[in-house]
Amino acid sequence: MKNILIIGAGLSASSLIRYLLVNSEKYNWKVNVGDISEELAKTKINNHKNATAFKFDVNNKQQREELIKNSDIVVSMLPASMHFEVAKDCVKFGVNMVTASYVSKEILTLDEEAKKKNVLLLNEIGVDPGIDHMSAMQVIDKIKENGGKLTQFESNTGGLVAPKYDNNPWNYKFTWNPRNVVLAGQGSASQFLHYGKFKYIPYHKLFERTERIKILDLGEFEVYPNRDSLKYQDIYGLQNLVTMFRGTIRRVGYSRAWNVFVQLGLTDDTYIYTNSLNHTYREFINSFTKYEETKPVEQKIAEYLNIHPESHLMYQIRWTGIFEDVKIGLPNATPAQILQSLLEKKWQMEDDDKDMIVMQHQFVYEINNKMRKLTSSLVVFGEDKIHTAMSITVGTPVAIAVKMILTGEIKSNGVQIPISKNMYQPILKELEQYNVKFIDEECDWEKPKEYV
Amino acid sequence: MKNILIIGAGLSASSLIRYLLVNSEKYNWKVNVGDISEELAKTKINNHKNATAFKFDVNNKQQREELIKNSDIVVSMLPASMHFEVAKDCVKFGVNMVTASYVSKEILTLDEEAKKKNVLLLNEIGVDPGIDHMSAMQVIDKIKENGGKLTQFESNTGGLVAPKYDNNPWNYKFTWNPRNVVLAGQGSASQFLHYGKFKYIPYHKLFERTERIKILDLGEFEVYPNRDSLKYQDIYGLQNLVTMFRGTIRRVGYSRAWNVFVQLGLTDDTYIYTNSLNHTYREFINSFTKYEETKPVEQKIAEYLNIHPESHLMYQIRWTGIFEDVKIGLPNATPAQILQSLLEKKWQMEDDDKDMIVMQHQFVYEINNKMRKLTSSLVVFGEDKIHTAMSITVGTPVAIAVKMILTGEIKSNGVQIPISKNMYQPILKELEQYNVKFIDEECDWEKPKEYV
Repeated sequence: MKNILIIGAGLSASSLIRYLLVNSEKYNWKVNVGDISEELAKTKINNHKNATAFKFDVNNKQQREELIKNSDIVVSMLPASMHFEVAKDCVKFGVNMVTASYVSKEILTLDEEAKKKNVLLLNEIGVDPGIDHMSAMQVIDKIKENGGKLTQFESNTGGLVAPKYDNNPWNYKFTWNPRNVVLAGQGSASQFLHYGKFKYIPYHKLFERTERIKILDLGEFEVYPNRDSLKYQDIYGLQNLVTMFRGTIRRVGYSRAWNVFVQLGLTDDTYIYTNSLNHTYREFINSFTKYEETKPVEQKIAEYLNIHPESHLMYQIRWTGIFEDVKIGLPNATPAQILQSLLEKKWQMEDDDKDMIVMQHQFVYEINNKMRKLTSSLVVFGEDKIHTAMSITVGTPVAIAVKMILTGEIKSNGVQIPISKNMYQPILKELEQYNVKFIDEECDWEKPKEYV
Repeated sequence: MKNILIIGAGLSASSLIRYLLVNSEKYNWKVNVGDISEELAKTKINNHKNATAFKFDVNNKQQREELIKNSDIVVSMLPASMHFEVAKDCVKFGVNMVTASYVSKEILTLDEEAKKKNVLLLNEIGVDPGIDHMSAMQVIDKIKENGGKLTQFESNTGGLVAPKYDNNPWNYKFTWNPRNVVLAGQGSASQFLHYGKFKYIPYHKLFERTERIKILDLGEFEVYPNRDSLKYQDIYGLQNLVTMFRGTIRRVGYSRAWNVFVQLGLTDDTYIYTNSLNHTYREFINSFTKYEETKPVEQKIAEYLNIHPESHLMYQIRWTGIFEDVKIGLPNATPAQILQSLLEKKWQMEDDDKDMIVMQHQFVYEINNKMRKLTSSLVVFGEDKIHTAMSITVGTPVAIAVKMILTGEIKSNGVQIPISKNMYQPILKELEQYNVKFIDEECDWEKPKEYV
């Protein structure tokens, strides 16, 4: 019997745990789920006979070491910053480990030692990063194999509410960590490559620099640039592209409205807003406008940011409740935390709501002296509020990788991400059974007319 | 004979050293000037018989301790981050110390120990901070003594080129550390109090939120908010004000033009611009615009930021040379460093140019049931490129404080700033001999009509 240790039983672990339990009989697995909340862990295993659930505190060294030592594989679904201690123990005790998070600098320092001990630390095998890597590399490798030459690559992903449940003027609800949504794009400028030119966009311009895409029969979406488009040039082996872009997908109109909060300064997380306990949301937003005694806040915002007072954009802002004289009631909160607290009320998924993951790659390549464009799109709908699209697309590839490592189908070591064919091919194949399937559309390509 | 140790012989130390040398005979002082450049130190003492000059490295512990131990007072004119080591030694060896820098958190930790050893660590006694504190407190105390009640306080300062030498479309030249000018306003939002309302302005809106002031016969200026207006409420004892504002003075039009650089992202100092060695300035600025094949960069910027292509604003930007195909030639530079390198060529003071310091406080107070407004203005012109207005206004108050500590007129200990009457009164009085003199204008006040 193989012991699988799952650390962290939050939302993204649901579909992972389900997969492992469903397959536990066939493969003779014992699935051990630890979480800081024992109750949460218990809910997730639902009394399954091949599973145990228990309270787990990553800072409890003795428990951590004991558990890892006695496991055949460890999956950390903890927040990314907590992986390192677990990874060190895994290397120490010779146990393979899987995460859905970005490879951190700390994790990378373990590469040499992990290789020496023949331990695999497999990361970035969720949805983004994860399915994006695998599906992009599958097409990139295929174009190369066919003698094509890739010249442009764009990759966009978004987590949204499914169309049927999309009933607010932002066409958005929180289907993932709200804090990450509020802080999205902050830090150094976004960088990408556009027709051979390096482009940099500072945070305060990011949500004005959207582009439009169409995804299958779902219609139009907009995309704002991610911060890190260029780092994948080396990882994917794409040094000669003229366009390299990665972005986040939202419904059309989201970014312009979000930009109002950015322009005002409401997404700032670097200082405490002095009156966060006693001010109302109306007083809060007013603090970011000019002093004018005779104008209502709505009018000041409209004039300050040059928005038509009767526009849909203004309706989006008003709809959040930010103009209401309702007490914030948060002690020592940053502007970003105050904004998050407001949006959590308005962008909450209802009990019956379902979410959706959309992903689209665009490849432009030259073959037989012709330019072709391949658009590869993925749409995954959530099943319910437990097995959300996010949970399915994050957890299922992790689970498949765990299986393949335990059965010996994946034989690698060191710090890895799933970009090699022997990894992505079987995983993408199996994912199709879970309705995670890319649809390809191909056509001739010519440079858009506005650039000629 | 009293030993005075001056550490750091840069621009701001010139007038300080001159004052001390001129008075060295009368007070029986030995003025010892150390700098990382021995040559610079020697230039500043100019073979004066009561002075020595030598190479001084603040990280050379033995030399530092030896010198401080044998001094009666130490003046640190080093960059603010280097004061702490010096201050620790001063407390250790029981030697008083003076700086023109803001009290840092580190310095503040020495307060208790300094009091125990009866050592004075006097800070913020330059121009801003320094003369601003002293001149403001003098008026604030006087209003209180006369039975008035202060309700509003604004304080603005700027270092500019003197009108006669003001011959570029920005009406600005570097009269101080260029790096600080390029990074001005970055960090957390600016905070101030306006007619009873707390106001917060994020960096990317700062240079759009200027107000206008008039200074004596020099005409109009504009002011953008400093980051730290509110922290002086407690220091000045002004908890009941409805308006509290501190700002930086520029000539009209500067901020709108600077805002172009801010909006594009050219002032960002948090990442390396990939092609800083080989790109031209034109390629650099183009990297922050949208990709459009048929439009020149100038046109793209004008459209992106909604600037009339033939406006004075556009002329200011063009005048900097940022649209020119001249190689940057800086390895691994941030956008802010690239911008600074360009402006250092254009905003350099010519050999015969003179600078100017402008400062203006506005006090609104109630007395005998009437509202009064007192405007207190200071204009100081530089003498030449050594004794600049900046050097005079930073160095002279420091020098006067040194004299008063040595003669026993100032008897204090612990970490202090010059806000008590027994300190500011004699210092301001003596500063008048150096043409550092505030002109007061007073009138009845009523709330501006646009707010009624």
